[in-house]
Amino acid sequence: MSKTDVMRTRVAIIGAGPAGLLLSHLLDAEGIESVVLETRTREYVEARIRAGILEQSTVDLLTEVGLGARLAAEGDRHRGIYLQWPHERHHIDFVELTGRAVTVYGQTEVQKDLGRAREAAGQQIVYGVSETALHDVGTERPFVTYTDNDGRPARLDAEVVVGCDGSFGPSRAAVPEAARQTWQRAYPYSWLGVLAEVAPSTDELIYAWHPDGFALHSMRSASISRFYLQVPADTDIAAWSDQRIWDALAARLGHGQDGWRLNPGPLLEKSVLPMRSFVQQPMRSGRLFLAGDAAHIVPPTGAKGLNLAVADVALLAPALAALLLKGDPGPAEAYSAAALRRVWRCTHFSWWMTTMLHTGEDPFDTQLQLSQLKWVTSSEAGAKGLAENYAGLPIGF
Amino acid sequence: MSKTDVMRTRVAIIGAGPAGLLLSHLLDAEGIESVVLETRTREYVEARIRAGILEQSTVDLLTEVGLGARLAAEGDRHRGIYLQWPHERHHIDFVELTGRAVTVYGQTEVQKDLGRAREAAGQQIVYGVSETALHDVGTERPFVTYTDNDGRPARLDAEVVVGCDGSFGPSRAAVPEAARQTWQRAYPYSWLGVLAEVAPSTDELIYAWHPDGFALHSMRSASISRFYLQVPADTDIAAWSDQRIWDALAARLGHGQDGWRLNPGPLLEKSVLPMRSFVQQPMRSGRLFLAGDAAHIVPPTGAKGLNLAVADVALLAPALAALLLKGDPGPAEAYSAAALRRVWRCTHFSWWMTTMLHTGEDPFDTQLQLSQLKWVTSSEAGAKGLAENYAGLPIGF
Repeated sequence: MSKTDVMRTRVAIIGAGPAGLLLSHLLDAEGIESVVLETRTREYVEARIRAGILEQSTVDLLTEVGLGARLAAEGDRHRGIYLQWPHERHHIDFVELTGRAVTVYGQTEVQKDLGRAREAAGQQIVYGVSETALHDVGTERPFVTYTDNDGRPARLDAEVVVGCDGSFGPSRAAVPEAARQTWQRAYPYSWLGVLAEVAPSTDELIYAWHPDGFALHSMRSASISRFYLQVPADTDIAAWSDQRIWDALAARLGHGQDGWRLNPGPLLEKSVLPMRSFVQQPMRSGRLFLAGDAAHIVPPTGAKGLNLAVADVALLAPALAALLLKGDPGPAEAYSAAALRRVWRCTHFSWWMTTMLHTGEDPFDTQLQLSQLKWVTSSEAGAKGLAENYAGLPIGF
Repeated sequence: MSKTDVMRTRVAIIGAGPAGLLLSHLLDAEGIESVVLETRTREYVEARIRAGILEQSTVDLLTEVGLGARLAAEGDRHRGIYLQWPHERHHIDFVELTGRAVTVYGQTEVQKDLGRAREAAGQQIVYGVSETALHDVGTERPFVTYTDNDGRPARLDAEVVVGCDGSFGPSRAAVPEAARQTWQRAYPYSWLGVLAEVAPSTDELIYAWHPDGFALHSMRSASISRFYLQVPADTDIAAWSDQRIWDALAARLGHGQDGWRLNPGPLLEKSVLPMRSFVQQPMRSGRLFLAGDAAHIVPPTGAKGLNLAVADVALLAPALAALLLKGDPGPAEAYSAAALRRVWRCTHFSWWMTTMLHTGEDPFDTQLQLSQLKWVTSSEAGAKGLAENYAGLPIGF
């Protein structure tokens, strides 16, 4: 048996995605040491394509904690979105309706900014681990075992373990079965997402309802566009040639209507994203806390996944500071209920946007969708309801 | 073969419910003669228990056309409703949110006011007809055949036929099959409705979400309360004793919570009401026009059925006046599209209120309902969205 390498820290963070790295950053600012464990490599984590819309409160938080320089320079502030259906395009102006905006800045970029900041601060991040397992989370001496990148068994002792390891990590299941409840919904469609090397054909995101299925024109920068097409849940990506993708985008986004043109370009990446909703509660069990996708998954339609992860750790960091620095367990005990208020709001909103925009089989549902779209784009209350959810509520609302 | 009794009028109205009688009243004010045919007796029509909430625009219209005296004296103006779930009751104040109120005044009373007004004006209403059939509605000389109360064949010649004969009348199907589209949704639950001889236990209607099912505390007057309980769609009313009804109402409405008490009393009437959504379009075919339940059915949760019928005839009467008095077909041609804007808005709203409040099997849906209820009662935009739909949009919005 090989000798186990044992480390000790105050907070063991499982997962080096945005939730895990931002938590380590916020804890560092409180003077609390942490170690982050990650199954992937740093290169992989920084290259994976994810969401790209930051709520006002996410931007504010990143800026406050010193992560806002490149975001301010390269992020693109958007006042709202377009909602459209054949022959009608309407602008929903978040700033006018709620005083809040959103910023287009890829999760990939947030990840890089976090990676650089943590590196500069000397954060210990162990990449390439496997067989991660959580132990004794019901006690004040929890620990994590794993196999390191060289195949050696290792152990991380801590006072608190935080699961930022998404849907596939072990943290979610480390909450005792009798103590946890889960809810889920699988949608009968997926998103075919593509990244294209072409300037966006629009100044703001276009959310398009179309009889053929939903389409979304998003963007990453002045020269990179991001598009999504509703496709059946069992879609084989091989069936979608570049030409078929551009034809479908042109039809669904309304190329040629009222003089609007969709500019095509080379596709850099294609992938099929499943759509589901998932919530596990509570988000705390003893000295184990869950944050981000480890506790909840939303379909991407409302652009909430990353923002929800940021809101979780924004609540969790001061709660852990109170627990570990002042011996005050109050905020840590309140964490789950407080985080879940926002989680359920965003879960409902994401479901609402998703079911309003994705076409299905039932012709009555189709009419309900069109009625709702007409209401949201003609009633100030309707538009404001969408805007306040999309632009996002203040953290700790 | 018995001799057919032939009458001639300008507008043949099929159905003497609120839509048909109000239309005859509005046409009379324009100087247009009409005859109303009705399968039931006047006593039956005036005794049947139906809705009880009038939108502001319905009250305004009835008042404008001389039908507002008893409504003003006996109707009860309500500022809003309560929305509740176990241990939480929230008031949604329509007046504060939208400047509009609703009035509690039974459809039965509207029917009596209309009956008296039409009688005083000498309106011809033929009760107790059967075998009603529409003919030649695609021409400018449509006519209606029927068997009168004495079993004699009769015929009514007209320039226009208006179907105000609800779901079961012949008008809906007189639109040529190739020209009509229908949409429908059956809900897996019904309402068990009871009328109780007891003062309401609340100042405003209470819409209650409860794990056992939805309950609604409504009222008709200072001494008559109206209650509804969600029950399965196939419910046998014999299974619901008075005691079981009161026990279920007490549990679902929260008797004993925060000192609130539900006062029971003798039950005057019990019935099971199916819940469905239905829309047929267009609402016009040649010289046949549809109004009210003949063209659309909403589940009663949003209190929209009667108000929608009133809004239809409020658009239709001036359109028929333009057609018949000025030879201007424009408003008559625009009627269907104009009426359907409101129909679909109310169809969506009624579906939304219904699916927010009625419990089902899926635990994720339950959480979505609670998230939505919390949002509607905590966000001003959420509350305003409900309020503007419930209190109702201006006619011809």
